[in-house]
Amino acid sequence: MGPTPDPRSLARIERDGVEDFVAVEDPLEIRVDGEPLAVTMRTPGHDEELALGFLHGEGLIDSPLEAGLTDDLAGNVVEVAGPLIRDPGVRSFYTTSSCGVCGKGAIEQVEVLSAPLPPGPEIERDTLASLPERLRQPGFDRTGGLHATGLFDPWGEAVCVREDVGRHNAMDKVIGWALREGLVPLRDSALCVSGRLSFELVQKAAVAGAPILVGVGAPSSLAIELAKARGMTLAGFARHGSVNVYSGSERVRE
Amino acid sequence: MGPTPDPRSLARIERDGVEDFVAVEDPLEIRVDGEPLAVTMRTPGHDEELALGFLHGEGLIDSPLEAGLTDDLAGNVVEVAGPLIRDPGVRSFYTTSSCGVCGKGAIEQVEVLSAPLPPGPEIERDTLASLPERLRQPGFDRTGGLHATGLFDPWGEAVCVREDVGRHNAMDKVIGWALREGLVPLRDSALCVSGRLSFELVQKAAVAGAPILVGVGAPSSLAIELAKARGMTLAGFARHGSVNVYSGSERVRE
Repeated sequence: MGPTPDPRSLARIERDGVEDFVAVEDPLEIRVDGEPLAVTMRTPGHDEELALGFLHGEGLIDSPLEAGLTDDLAGNVVEVAGPLIRDPGVRSFYTTSSCGVCGKGAIEQVEVLSAPLPPGPEIERDTLASLPERLRQPGFDRTGGLHATGLFDPWGEAVCVREDVGRHNAMDKVIGWALREGLVPLRDSALCVSGRLSFELVQKAAVAGAPILVGVGAPSSLAIELAKARGMTLAGFARHGSVNVYSGSERVRE
Repeated sequence: MGPTPDPRSLARIERDGVEDFVAVEDPLEIRVDGEPLAVTMRTPGHDEELALGFLHGEGLIDSPLEAGLTDDLAGNVVEVAGPLIRDPGVRSFYTTSSCGVCGKGAIEQVEVLSAPLPPGPEIERDTLASLPERLRQPGFDRTGGLHATGLFDPWGEAVCVREDVGRHNAMDKVIGWALREGLVPLRDSALCVSGRLSFELVQKAAVAGAPILVGVGAPSSLAIELAKARGMTLAGFARHGSVNVYSGSERVRE
């Protein structure tokens, strides 16, 4: 947080004879007890939080396990000390016996991984609409190439902001941070993302217990369906003082 | 193509008491000879092309195999008739013995999957900068929630445009179309994407033999490295008549 970008997130390049900065993208391998579990292309920095947030979103951990970068020369491996709370196995999110592969199966799987959201908090519509402007992005300001996720209190104060070339990674980093701080489930707060609202982002937010999720961009059909099924407030197109509310409007105060 | 959005790509919703449209997102399972290979969250439509483009980008096919939606009730399974040209196995893109998990390993893997790009074609800088404006997006116009990829000739005429909630899917759909049309490798053409330029998009373009890739958004560090390694022209921030060229400027005529 703060106005200075993380130096690990920026690469200096030359183009057309001028110096410029671009966002760094590099693979990160997440290992649990020495076993490779996943590889994601991410922007270096806050890698342990990314790993913990990712594992939490997959329903594999419910507490902040020990995690650290290994001495891999490239600094691109996070080692997590288990145990996991379930076998990672193969995800079977998408199949239900009644309809074949479908979004309903994906929604039901998230239900298994997340507790129902309690009522509240309430947030002023104007505050909700203003969250993207409050999502300070020092790395984006230099590169134009980084997504961000921010955790806010219901009065619009930023609690934690993380940037990444992958929007799902930015959210994993915030949730991993919150997990370490003992703030999960994310009651009495709102998550804000710099881009569009996909199923995957709503899934991660739901599993972390976030009652409110707002984005600068558009939601997908399945993102809205999942938010409704979980009782989450989902809002999009938050720009220029305006915001569209797709689900859970009872938390939005006019 | 054309001004009418694919009806499968749009969902009608109600929000704040008004009717609105959002982009459809639903899982698609890709099976080869009955074996599930991958699941992607995508916007329905051109699913066979998506499956073929995906398999091509992974180096698993080099010709347009038979592909069709199965009678899965949700219409979310594409069955491809093999054989594949290599065992899908586990991707080992990211590890090299010299440096651990790193981007260099990922770049070397793409080298294995793609032939070197020949010189040419040349494209006027103004034409390159204008491609995003020529990327007509009927679905985006209705929803604000769809990425697009377009295949263009060097004079800026659109040959094929596809939309999807996932930018990687939009590119897979275009490459799958081109594969069926016998246009792969994509000589004498340019690909244009509506968003940012990640490693993954450059990888798919490189494996398809695309000499020129331009985006509305920023490239990542690894996207630029890969484009340079493959001799591809990579350009970003194509807006308002301007464009930044990061690699392969010899194809850009001033």
